Amino acid sequence: MAKNNSTAHTAKRNIIVGQSGGPTAVINSSLAGVYKTARERGFHTVYGMLHGIEGFLDEQYVDLATQIHSDMDIELLKRTPSAFLGSCRYKLPGIHEDPGLYEKIFSILDKLEIEAFIYIGGNDSMDTIKKLSDYAIVKGHEQKFLGVPKTIDNDLALTDHTPGFGSAAKYIAASTKEIIRDALGLAYNRKMVTILEVMGRNAGWLTGATALAKTEECEGPDLIYLPELTFDIDHFLKKTGELLKKKDSVIIAVSEGIKLADGRYVCELSGGADYVDAFGHKQLQGTAAYLAGFLGAELGCKTRSIEFSTLQRSASHMASRVDINEAFMVGGAAVKAADEGDTGKMVVIDRIADDPYMSSAGIYDVHRIANNEKLVPREWVNKEGDYITEEFINYIEPLIQGDYQPFMVNGLPQHLVLNRK
Amino acid sequence: MAKNNSTAHTAKRNIIVGQSGGPTAVINSSLAGVYKTARERGFHTVYGMLHGIEGFLDEQYVDLATQIHSDMDIELLKRTPSAFLGSCRYKLPGIHEDPGLYEKIFSILDKLEIEAFIYIGGNDSMDTIKKLSDYAIVKGHEQKFLGVPKTIDNDLALTDHTPGFGSAAKYIAASTKEIIRDALGLAYNRKMVTILEVMGRNAGWLTGATALAKTEECEGPDLIYLPELTFDIDHFLKKTGELLKKKDSVIIAVSEGIKLADGRYVCELSGGADYVDAFGHKQLQGTAAYLAGFLGAELGCKTRSIEFSTLQRSASHMASRVDINEAFMVGGAAVKAADEGDTGKMVVIDRIADDPYMSSAGIYDVHRIANNEKLVPREWVNKEGDYITEEFINYIEPLIQGDYQPFMVNGLPQHLVLNRK
Repeated sequence: MAKNNSTAHTAKRNIIVGQSGGPTAVINSSLAGVYKTARERGFHTVYGMLHGIEGFLDEQYVDLATQIHSDMDIELLKRTPSAFLGSCRYKLPGIHEDPGLYEKIFSILDKLEIEAFIYIGGNDSMDTIKKLSDYAIVKGHEQKFLGVPKTIDNDLALTDHTPGFGSAAKYIAASTKEIIRDALGLAYNRKMVTILEVMGRNAGWLTGATALAKTEECEGPDLIYLPELTFDIDHFLKKTGELLKKKDSVIIAVSEGIKLADGRYVCELSGGADYVDAFGHKQLQGTAAYLAGFLGAELGCKTRSIEFSTLQRSASHMASRVDINEAFMVGGAAVKAADEGDTGKMVVIDRIADDPYMSSAGIYDVHRIANNEKLVPREWVNKEGDYITEEFINYIEPLIQGDYQPFMVNGLPQHLVLNRK
Repeated sequence: MAKNNSTAHTAKRNIIVGQSGGPTAVINSSLAGVYKTARERGFHTVYGMLHGIEGFLDEQYVDLATQIHSDMDIELLKRTPSAFLGSCRYKLPGIHEDPGLYEKIFSILDKLEIEAFIYIGGNDSMDTIKKLSDYAIVKGHEQKFLGVPKTIDNDLALTDHTPGFGSAAKYIAASTKEIIRDALGLAYNRKMVTILEVMGRNAGWLTGATALAKTEECEGPDLIYLPELTFDIDHFLKKTGELLKKKDSVIIAVSEGIKLADGRYVCELSGGADYVDAFGHKQLQGTAAYLAGFLGAELGCKTRSIEFSTLQRSASHMASRVDINEAFMVGGAAVKAADEGDTGKMVVIDRIADDPYMSSAGIYDVHRIANNEKLVPREWVNKEGDYITEEFINYIEPLIQGDYQPFMVNGLPQHLVLNRK
């Protein structure tokens, strides 16, 4: 963000920022953007709430000036995965359900002399921004509430894509390339099917990203199954069997959230999905393992299953430069918007052009955003429902470009971590 | 390897190289070392057997000059995971069991005018070198047979460590750091146990490498269980329960091969280990998932399990510079040894010094090596059997240092792949 000299010397009150929901590889780059822009625009103290609104209610917060001491620390923060401040999965009740809670929140905000409240998160976090800004307007509080998007799932509406998605897509595509090489090295006089399980409960954006592994020296995956379409296990068996007649190594990418026609998750067939998280979401795991067992039994071939797991959202060492920069940009843009009087808004990423890729920060009313899920459009999946189209690839490809070299110390990437002393 | 001008202009016959066993991130760096040194020492044609001795028996081989066209290709090969030439899991029968097979092998070698046969692989591959060199000596064939070690498991005797181990250890340590950040970001007002499952059937070298995540800004894992020691599930439950009283996020690393006192693999408790591979090894999977379910039920906390899976051996993008360089060195040293008349030997890595770390290539009789497994010594594990010692750390730490920046094309690491045309 360019230094805004016109406001830098005006004394302003304080600002507070929090992180919420599932972490990503670049959620801290948004935090860095918030911090840097808040400093540049003359806010006095930049507070970080610990573990989002949940920790805030326990009056858990830090002055970020005690944590970030230099431009080097800002660069390190950009390269640090997960939520530096800690995250939470806390859904604010409706205003009428617990008015005392809202009074408590605003009394803490008043005590800290907060002028702007920035919340970095996904669908559920934007709901928090909506409720707090509504309450402030109704009750005549002056604080501004701004949302900064983040989610590896890319399922937020109105933004072209979400910060965090590009880095997860890059990690998945790079790992898929490496696994395809591994499989080809092993396949000789024996057939092998490798099934990759990718995160994405309802949205197949990340599963589709495995197609980026198709490059001049790599065939990419053979079949891709997104959760937006009903999973036809008979078609899956037939297609895999046909492919195995033609080639020794078959690579299949499936979303963790694929469902059968009767509505059951595939992972439920193996006894998975047996507990729900704080938002009432079923935990999905074991889809690829179930399908690997199924194919092995039906086709008699060697199979293996690989879950990309938590590393999809935490592998900062393979983060995308475009993604880190955009995450930083939207963090800064939220501070700018609040400083200019906006509230109840979320910053979004607008795509200006595909090639050369250009983007800018836009802003939308958070009432239009919260709780709408953006899914992969049907026309971006092929007719048979087992691969994605060129449009999908063109959409993702710019988002995985470039990298920030990790700061390596003793052979490992270094991170900036919270100093609680 | 330094160019050996004294021999470069002497006309030599041909050399053949193959890759065998489970791939690693740096087995192709050894191939690059073989190729470069063979060229420098004046061998005429450098053949690559496709899929090891198994493909060789089908007369599947390539002239590597048709694949590697430049120094740039050699650099790309060093950054390419898995076996460029393809691997195999083929155990040569005893000479007396199938003399016809040996005659066939040597007739192909004679036809191709092979002077030296280099085989890059693990324990089973060194058995191949032993049998072929024995046969040659008994039958009066002049070919030389040399082994180049590789295995992520580090379980080969007589070499200080194996090429492939350092890169797998680096990937595991870096990923462990990222996962620990992820867990800490989420843990607030709820307890969570994360169980990491690491490769290593009998040897705990890689599981111990998770301890490298303990750095100035990271606590590292809390408990580490190696397969060398009997796994005491009651002790595991008690220790985890005690840790959860003190901290919100507990990180536990387990080897896939941990066994109970009655000899059963832990993964067998969940119905895993249900098939065996070509070498009669049980396939182990599901150890962490079983233990996560067990802890969740016993302690009532949130748990998750993460398998590092195939990426442990294929994540070239996180390979160690020390490892890539040593893999290259031992490949070249094998060619030199064969050229100087050695046979029935394996090149090893000798550690000259710990700090600053220095190593060199040594050579050992393959009869002393094959089928001996090098395990973690008991004194490198703490008394309670749930963590490793400082000596273990000092042993591994030099092996994960430095990196080779991947060659990124369109946002993804580029690889050198076999051109079959």
